[in-house]
Amino acid sequence: MTERDQYVVGVDFGTLSGRALVVRVSDGLELASAVTDYPHGVMDTALATTGERLGPEWALQAPEDYVEVLRTAVPAAIREAGVDPAAVIGIATDFTASTPLPVTADGTPLSWLPEFAGRPHAYVKLWKHHAAQGQADRINRLARERGESWLPRYGGSISSEWELAKGLQLLEEDPEVYARTDHWAEAADWVVWQLSGRYLRNACTAGYKANLQDGAYPSHDFLATLNPGFADFAEQKVAHPIGRLGERAGGLTAEAAAWTGLPEGIAVAVGNVDAHVTAPAAQAVEPGQMVAIMGTSTCHIVSAAELVDVPGMCGVVDGGIIAGLYGYEAGQSGVGDILGWYVENQVPGSYAEAAAAAGRSLHEHLTELAFAEPVGAHGLLALDWHNGNRSVLVDTGLSGLVLGQTLATRSEQVYRALIEATAFGTRMIVETFAAAGLPVGEFIAAGGLLRNRHLMQTYADVLGMPISVIGSDQGPALGAAIHAAVAAGAYPDVPAAAAAMGRRERDAYRPEPAASKAYDALYQEYVALHDHFGRGGSDVMHRLKQIRREALG
Amino acid sequence: MTERDQYVVGVDFGTLSGRALVVRVSDGLELASAVTDYPHGVMDTALATTGERLGPEWALQAPEDYVEVLRTAVPAAIREAGVDPAAVIGIATDFTASTPLPVTADGTPLSWLPEFAGRPHAYVKLWKHHAAQGQADRINRLARERGESWLPRYGGSISSEWELAKGLQLLEEDPEVYARTDHWAEAADWVVWQLSGRYLRNACTAGYKANLQDGAYPSHDFLATLNPGFADFAEQKVAHPIGRLGERAGGLTAEAAAWTGLPEGIAVAVGNVDAHVTAPAAQAVEPGQMVAIMGTSTCHIVSAAELVDVPGMCGVVDGGIIAGLYGYEAGQSGVGDILGWYVENQVPGSYAEAAAAAGRSLHEHLTELAFAEPVGAHGLLALDWHNGNRSVLVDTGLSGLVLGQTLATRSEQVYRALIEATAFGTRMIVETFAAAGLPVGEFIAAGGLLRNRHLMQTYADVLGMPISVIGSDQGPALGAAIHAAVAAGAYPDVPAAAAAMGRRERDAYRPEPAASKAYDALYQEYVALHDHFGRGGSDVMHRLKQIRREALG
Repeated sequence: MTERDQYVVGVDFGTLSGRALVVRVSDGLELASAVTDYPHGVMDTALATTGERLGPEWALQAPEDYVEVLRTAVPAAIREAGVDPAAVIGIATDFTASTPLPVTADGTPLSWLPEFAGRPHAYVKLWKHHAAQGQADRINRLARERGESWLPRYGGSISSEWELAKGLQLLEEDPEVYARTDHWAEAADWVVWQLSGRYLRNACTAGYKANLQDGAYPSHDFLATLNPGFADFAEQKVAHPIGRLGERAGGLTAEAAAWTGLPEGIAVAVGNVDAHVTAPAAQAVEPGQMVAIMGTSTCHIVSAAELVDVPGMCGVVDGGIIAGLYGYEAGQSGVGDILGWYVENQVPGSYAEAAAAAGRSLHEHLTELAFAEPVGAHGLLALDWHNGNRSVLVDTGLSGLVLGQTLATRSEQVYRALIEATAFGTRMIVETFAAAGLPVGEFIAAGGLLRNRHLMQTYADVLGMPISVIGSDQGPALGAAIHAAVAAGAYPDVPAAAAAMGRRERDAYRPEPAASKAYDALYQEYVALHDHFGRGGSDVMHRLKQIRREALG
Repeated sequence: MTERDQYVVGVDFGTLSGRALVVRVSDGLELASAVTDYPHGVMDTALATTGERLGPEWALQAPEDYVEVLRTAVPAAIREAGVDPAAVIGIATDFTASTPLPVTADGTPLSWLPEFAGRPHAYVKLWKHHAAQGQADRINRLARERGESWLPRYGGSISSEWELAKGLQLLEEDPEVYARTDHWAEAADWVVWQLSGRYLRNACTAGYKANLQDGAYPSHDFLATLNPGFADFAEQKVAHPIGRLGERAGGLTAEAAAWTGLPEGIAVAVGNVDAHVTAPAAQAVEPGQMVAIMGTSTCHIVSAAELVDVPGMCGVVDGGIIAGLYGYEAGQSGVGDILGWYVENQVPGSYAEAAAAAGRSLHEHLTELAFAEPVGAHGLLALDWHNGNRSVLVDTGLSGLVLGQTLATRSEQVYRALIEATAFGTRMIVETFAAAGLPVGEFIAAGGLLRNRHLMQTYADVLGMPISVIGSDQGPALGAAIHAAVAAGAYPDVPAAAAAMGRRERDAYRPEPAASKAYDALYQEYVALHDHFGRGGSDVMHRLKQIRREALG
């Protein structure tokens, strides 16, 4: 560090906590970070203020928790980094999404109004609030009937997690709170509003989560057909000026300067989403560089100059990842979650004991055992649909499958088959993009699953292409910091900042030819099963879910 | 007991031990039993005499162990019963099969000859010796090519467990022992020979295990084509006078009287097989009464007046179960074995702890949890092919499948789905018999799985018919005792003896209409999966096994 070094702060707002990271502008060096757990966490069983029970699939948050992160994690990270706050030139944030909240015209969350503090619908609906599925189903059905032009931009189906479905649920279940809502704001934008005093919608969530396409939201007529009271939803509560990613939203307010200990007036960047902000942190700014953020689920993002329809994508948004390019998103709805479920529900106690004796986690232990034998030796094949299939089938009614068990099959062998199934699912996405005219030139991995080297090698072998990996454990926060540097004018644009501040290890995993060839054969079997159960050969998975619903009454 | 009561002894020779049961002739009352573990157990890794390692799939026994059962278990049971040995009028046995051994003309096992004591091929090849699979494959291929008339009597395929395959292996791997073999005897008949001094082949094993059909074994020409040295196998080493089931083979020899403490000269019945001998114990002696002996695997036996081809049956033999009727056998190659495999390999330690805390076995614990919810609530469907499929597909290359898993699926739910799959597999067999012209009028269950009442109720619900259950825990030994009583002349035939001495509880389980209807829908899904993976829709299971073999080199 020299006296002339400048710094930026990236703040990553996750599901359970917020993390502030202090980064050097010149080269992206990560100096220190600090984490604040949300005091209210995720409210998914009861509302904290009243103890009122929440229904199944609900997930709320309290917006004051986000301010707490600004007040505690940011100054702690600065202290830990040992830098002079005066040397900080910008701050940027990223957020889970879609995580909307109802606010007044001045940005006050309705949950802060005494008359609404006891009303669940006045709170933040976290991304994983899935109680608006009924509304989402109606929206999709109507959009298909009417042939809404925005529908193909979302692979033919929008999610119950997004703003439209959650907004409709708000209207239909608590019209009083709905009526009082001036803005249906993404938390990603609300927190920037708190920092800068200015409300701008970011291009990313507006496009991916609020159905903004070609400058228009879903029409008055469409919304009125869903519910007459919903007709003005988009124009009155959603529409708002759009900020480009990396743009300066405004200067840090005096109040926010007091919270954070940072200089008043420094650049505050437009909001962003955790997955998408990771792309520049991994130096994925060019068309064809796909970043896979691999965790409980996997999000695949890739930019392109062209606008095309990719079957089963989650969305394509102009400037959704990098300003000036179309940003494509696809997803696998269960990856780490499936492995976690398996370890919790299908692994005998003897493995836990052996893992403890070997001083490693159960995941590590299973991995070591499973990958001691060659490809195909377990004789198994799985479908990774335990949480449904987003890309490329867009079907939440699908479910998991394991095939090939014998009386000699061991627990770790099924674990490996599940890992392989997720890799096959990724290959299906990569091939679908290529078939749509968007070949993936480089595959870059980020996220928690990077820790499992056998898993990563499997992905390289299955994809038959090298895998680059992000060079940071704090991809989202580093990505936010890059946007802060751009907003502060330290770089002309995000790609330039990414080149200096981002980090990736090129070709960290290379396909091993023999394994890759063996996986080619298994992938063909996966495709056959995938198409049989996912594309109409057999509808048994849907029927079993229907039978299940009827059985549970 | 009165002074005039008469008794018989049934001896059941199992895989690991032999059990003697003392039974009252007048009513089948079971007085006492005693068990002797085989001193050599199952030799499946090394030969006891030399320590020589055995190959994979080998399983040998030492015939002196069977004599040990006669010397210890029989007198112990008599003592325990407190009956006067002079009141015992007959003894009969049943055995695992096909369990052949090479003997000299006077019945001496070749393993007892000093020059052969170190030769694995001189020992008993237990039913589960599967090292003759290569020979079985060649036999089946050639039989199909030549259209051998006996092949359809075995559902189109004979087993590596049977006499022909094991005999060919003997010839090809140890021609010297083969040359010295005067008789290739079933242990079922050898032990009767030891008791009575007379060698008679029983109709059951001769038909089911040695391919005797319409009075003929496979032809000289057929055998010569397999291997020129094998041409005389049937006529020289297998063919021998046949004894009907329940017939008196001879009188107890002085030597055997000394072993057992029973009176010299009492009736010794013709040998029999453990599954088949169970039928009269369960009072299943009429056409259309199917007995399912449900244990690690399930054997289904039913008699009929007609000779027809039933697809996928294991065999049909004239007098194979009841003299004067055609005895049909079918089988599910994995039932309790699949549940055992699951508990060993796919159930978390927390369940074992909870089961222990509740003072019940893990199987009991999983069953209680799984059946607390209604039919279909788990959303799962499985194929019970972990050990291949015998009936009705006759395909050892098939494997297991579980479908419908979500992130909410619990371990006990998969356990239940596996139980249901075995019930569906049974329904497939029952329906296949009916379609072939042999309707099952009564379904009678026997075997270890009777203990699981939820499992039994599931079978009744899935079959849509009441299930009767055998009224004895010692079905095979009681069945043997019934045959002893007939051989001793206490009853004119086995059906008459079964009426007096057998026991079954009629309609112990009745289908619950709502559950039965729900299972009908699931069974249709099972049939669709069964036919897709088992009848040519997808050959993925075979290809995965091929890939596995190649991977393991």
